[in-house]
Amino acid sequence: MSDLHVPQGFVFGATKAGIKASGGLDLAVAEAPLGANAAALFTRNRVVAAPVSIGKQHLKQTHGRIRAVVVNAGNANCATGPIGFVAAQAVCRKAALLLQVREEFIVPSSTGIIGVPFPVEKVIAALPNAVDGQTSSENSIQSFARAIMTTDKAMKVASAEFSVGTKTVRMLGVAKGSGMIHPNLATMLVYLFTDIEASPKDLKSLLKAACDPTFNSITVDGDTSTNDTVLLMASGQSGVKLKSRGAEKQFAKALIEVCASLAEKIVMDGEGVKHVVNLKVEGASNNKAADQIARTIAHSMLVKTAWAGADPNWGRILAAVGRSGVPVDPHTVDVYIGTQQVCRGGGSVKFDEAAAHACMSEPKYDIRVKVGDGRGWANLLSCDLTSEYVRINADYST
Amino acid sequence: MSDLHVPQGFVFGATKAGIKASGGLDLAVAEAPLGANAAALFTRNRVVAAPVSIGKQHLKQTHGRIRAVVVNAGNANCATGPIGFVAAQAVCRKAALLLQVREEFIVPSSTGIIGVPFPVEKVIAALPNAVDGQTSSENSIQSFARAIMTTDKAMKVASAEFSVGTKTVRMLGVAKGSGMIHPNLATMLVYLFTDIEASPKDLKSLLKAACDPTFNSITVDGDTSTNDTVLLMASGQSGVKLKSRGAEKQFAKALIEVCASLAEKIVMDGEGVKHVVNLKVEGASNNKAADQIARTIAHSMLVKTAWAGADPNWGRILAAVGRSGVPVDPHTVDVYIGTQQVCRGGGSVKFDEAAAHACMSEPKYDIRVKVGDGRGWANLLSCDLTSEYVRINADYST
Repeated sequence: MSDLHVPQGFVFGATKAGIKASGGLDLAVAEAPLGANAAALFTRNRVVAAPVSIGKQHLKQTHGRIRAVVVNAGNANCATGPIGFVAAQAVCRKAALLLQVREEFIVPSSTGIIGVPFPVEKVIAALPNAVDGQTSSENSIQSFARAIMTTDKAMKVASAEFSVGTKTVRMLGVAKGSGMIHPNLATMLVYLFTDIEASPKDLKSLLKAACDPTFNSITVDGDTSTNDTVLLMASGQSGVKLKSRGAEKQFAKALIEVCASLAEKIVMDGEGVKHVVNLKVEGASNNKAADQIARTIAHSMLVKTAWAGADPNWGRILAAVGRSGVPVDPHTVDVYIGTQQVCRGGGSVKFDEAAAHACMSEPKYDIRVKVGDGRGWANLLSCDLTSEYVRINADYST
Repeated sequence: MSDLHVPQGFVFGATKAGIKASGGLDLAVAEAPLGANAAALFTRNRVVAAPVSIGKQHLKQTHGRIRAVVVNAGNANCATGPIGFVAAQAVCRKAALLLQVREEFIVPSSTGIIGVPFPVEKVIAALPNAVDGQTSSENSIQSFARAIMTTDKAMKVASAEFSVGTKTVRMLGVAKGSGMIHPNLATMLVYLFTDIEASPKDLKSLLKAACDPTFNSITVDGDTSTNDTVLLMASGQSGVKLKSRGAEKQFAKALIEVCASLAEKIVMDGEGVKHVVNLKVEGASNNKAADQIARTIAHSMLVKTAWAGADPNWGRILAAVGRSGVPVDPHTVDVYIGTQQVCRGGGSVKFDEAAAHACMSEPKYDIRVKVGDGRGWANLLSCDLTSEYVRINADYST
């Protein structure tokens, strides 16, 4: 954490609101005291938690200008009906009062169990504590990162910086979650802070471009959450404008770098995950087809359990390609584990099984599937399906 | 087995060809000595095993007339290249020679590991034994049913009969597999025998109609096999014509009954399965939409692990509905476990958690999801995802 690049113009705070059964930190605030331009991407699930609806609405009302994000862990405030909606509004109103802004400048976020009444009194009672304790120290950032965790084993923080002339632009990212793998909670939350000066519109397009190859290219179990949120706030305090010479390209690169680092941390920390697989599909007729094939492979329980056993069972991958819905000629399919080819033209090829098993015993490795001669490709960061995943998710509430 | 209704005009045989490591029965033949009209449905996976290609071709060549089916377990003869194709042809040629018919009257079937060279010599050497021992006794039928098993724990046989005038029509079904759940093999094979007299065309349309609500409405892990086969053979030996008064309706009913019984046996015997869930989705705008929602729920790892824990966690079901791709208003979603409502209008409702848990602890129970006021519905027989499934599939070849 000592190499953290902390952008100017932000303070962070966290406290214990008593939502988590563990009694740990569970309420966090990140504020841009002078305000920030912002852009956000939310879950595509049609079932949407109350704070997500409100966050979207607020960003629209302020045309992408926000003051603070308020996050709680332990309760997702989803499927909680009109009462849940009113509760999320009340949290925003309380934060607005404390920070002396209008409530539409507050973005709320929640993660935790679905369908359980939101403990709004606890959150409102604890909020002053979180706000009062805000600083820009690494300690405060760590507390923020810890407070938003649920079943995460590790906190997830990444940062980057670059220079434009004599000035420095910094970027900090904090995340929680394991893709869509979490039990009752199933949420990925990502907060990105930077001190560059940029319009909400530019931030949005840069955020979209950064999310596609990172957060949108990880998958754990294919279950999309109802609360997924990626929020980018830009304070402008570095004095560097996005449109100044050479800045935008560096910014885009740094943003992808931070997002990619957080995305990998999320998969690595997936429930029960023992192996992270960097799955590449190439040779498809277009990128969409490649993506569809990659997702079919990465969501196949037979493939994922083979990965859990470090089993170089390429037949399961071939069968997943065949049922992906993409018109692929099986006789043009090649499969590589690490650098070793294990299937050629949809058939077997002599390979060193012990070496393949050793490769698959590593915590992270590549699998490459060539499905033809097209130019379409996709890259998915995925993981295995272990007995521990089942244990965690089956034993959750019983 | 004492109540088995054995149709006239068929004999069954099985032997040990030495393909299975266990040394058990692994080669089976079912013959209609006077021939049979036939219809078959095969896997929709684009990766197709050699025997499936050949079976399709033979049925086309003979316009649906066949003499025998030859089945082996232990090797799927899939992804085995041109050599695998030649091997499957050689098996047909040998059987044809033994039965003194042209080889296109033989339908071959294989189940077992993918991508491993097919032990054609073993099969050809053992074939005379299987053919010579054929009888119509229940013992022979049991041997046939056992020989086609792979990781199945129980053999799967069902039968039915009905009367037309003074004559009796009988139907016998033998199956193996657990939907698409099996490790390297992943195959469902179903053989249906009847002594009604019917054209291949009529058999085909009746078979399709029977498969939709039965074999096409079960799911274990969503992995479609490369070898799936459902074959219906009609010897005509009962002397009853399908088109005779009252016969067709009774036949269709008996066919669905036998198929439904086998389908349920397949899910019940799924790897690691502890609970079978009869999932009903209703109120969708049409049946296709309902089916898409049902499959999204039934393939969700979070839902399936909740079922493993007998956890009445309806939030996971709601989230699966939301990401199914079907435009559903979450506020119109009701969920019932057994007869008890656990979610109303996309929100929580007071329910007896202990009773719900008790219901979900049964080996089989209903879950009903109402997604609106439409007339579309779907019914899927599914199951939970247990640690045992992972253990079996992860430990398979390492």
